[in-house]
Amino acid sequence: MKEYEGYLIDLDGTMYRGKESIPEAVQFVARLRKKDIPFLFVTNNSSKTPRQVAEHLNHLGMEAKEEEVFTTSMAAANYLYDHHPNTSIYVIGETGLMSALEERGLKLTDEDPEAVIIGIDRKITYEKLAKACLSVRKGAMFFSTNGDIALPTEKGLLPGNGAITSVVSISTQKEPIFIGKPHRIIMEQALKVLGSIKEKTLMVGDNYDTDILAGINIGMDTLLVHTGVTTREALKEKKSQPTHVLDTLEEWNI
Amino acid sequence: MKEYEGYLIDLDGTMYRGKESIPEAVQFVARLRKKDIPFLFVTNNSSKTPRQVAEHLNHLGMEAKEEEVFTTSMAAANYLYDHHPNTSIYVIGETGLMSALEERGLKLTDEDPEAVIIGIDRKITYEKLAKACLSVRKGAMFFSTNGDIALPTEKGLLPGNGAITSVVSISTQKEPIFIGKPHRIIMEQALKVLGSIKEKTLMVGDNYDTDILAGINIGMDTLLVHTGVTTREALKEKKSQPTHVLDTLEEWNI
Repeated sequence: MKEYEGYLIDLDGTMYRGKESIPEAVQFVARLRKKDIPFLFVTNNSSKTPRQVAEHLNHLGMEAKEEEVFTTSMAAANYLYDHHPNTSIYVIGETGLMSALEERGLKLTDEDPEAVIIGIDRKITYEKLAKACLSVRKGAMFFSTNGDIALPTEKGLLPGNGAITSVVSISTQKEPIFIGKPHRIIMEQALKVLGSIKEKTLMVGDNYDTDILAGINIGMDTLLVHTGVTTREALKEKKSQPTHVLDTLEEWNI
Repeated sequence: MKEYEGYLIDLDGTMYRGKESIPEAVQFVARLRKKDIPFLFVTNNSSKTPRQVAEHLNHLGMEAKEEEVFTTSMAAANYLYDHHPNTSIYVIGETGLMSALEERGLKLTDEDPEAVIIGIDRKITYEKLAKACLSVRKGAMFFSTNGDIALPTEKGLLPGNGAITSVVSISTQKEPIFIGKPHRIIMEQALKVLGSIKEKTLMVGDNYDTDILAGINIGMDTLLVHTGVTTREALKEKKSQPTHVLDTLEEWNI
């Protein structure tokens, strides 16, 4: 078995389910820590800061540090900083996205932006969506933190950021550049932060269509764990299979 | 030339452009009135009541009565009254839609609806969209007044109801039943109100993709007038051609 020098690990469905942590996954991370193998929790949640995500994990009974969390908002901020550092940006989103962009010193604006980025915003208004549409029609670059169509909550599946983003993409007939899984940008930025090359890094997650495809799309090895979204039956239908498949992370040797 | 016994006539781009009425179209309607030929103005605008639409036309210097206006909200209300009279409905929309449904005595609700209908709502919130998503996922019927992706305003093209509706259709992966042009329901309901059979009625409009397709979809004759959206060049690309094509309605003999 290949030895991986770094791990990118999904959160929801992989480390916890709803309000409960998954013991085998928590043990797996403890083993990584013990062996000093670098890892990052990689999440499409754009609304929270890494500190808030770490606090949430601690609250669920898992040890986690702010530096171990990499959100799609951080990926967006790093990407924009790398490629468009002086671009003025109109942001639709919550604290996680706003603060990630601000921490990178990016130029946020409400008027005539050169770029628009959309992350989940539960205070969305018609005016915000109208402003995004007008800017994208005028030629602003168009980014979206992630294309998730639904957001799992206690109330049920609420509209995800992919559904909110569709207002602008459908109205303007322009597709955004998506940052989050299964797209490449979050993976490239996560590998940079982790300091590990993709050939020696493993992507671990429960959701074929986001986690595993993200790994496949960037050419990384992948491990699908059946503790969340993707069942064995659903996996059979997929053309490209993960490198590894397990029922729980207990079975994974490090 | 076939003599038509009734006319369905689009408004924006056909009767007026922006803040100006189109004189040839106004004269055309005056000739219809003089000959007592029944007509209805048929609009995908769901936000206004027929009285408000008539007032707007009068304001633009055109004579128009409330009874001559048929909105997609009225079509929705008539359709629901005909087919689902006792169904509880959750409504996202503005005055035009709310009052059309109320006038038909339909049962509007905020909780556990059996149907959801979405019309343009410039006071849209995440909560409203979430409620629609949860209801549609639970099996509620799903309607949308119209699929227009953009709303022309002085500020530019803002998100139309098709773009707003996409939040729910993308998130739930369920397609709504659209009421407005180019779909059949508004045409069927307009013909009922007009009291004219489709074989002897002409659909008149400037927009191939809404007005003309609406006529074609229901098997009516159509007249495309080049005073608005669809240019001669764009029309050449279309497989099914309108029955008649004119530069202005001055050329139309009644």
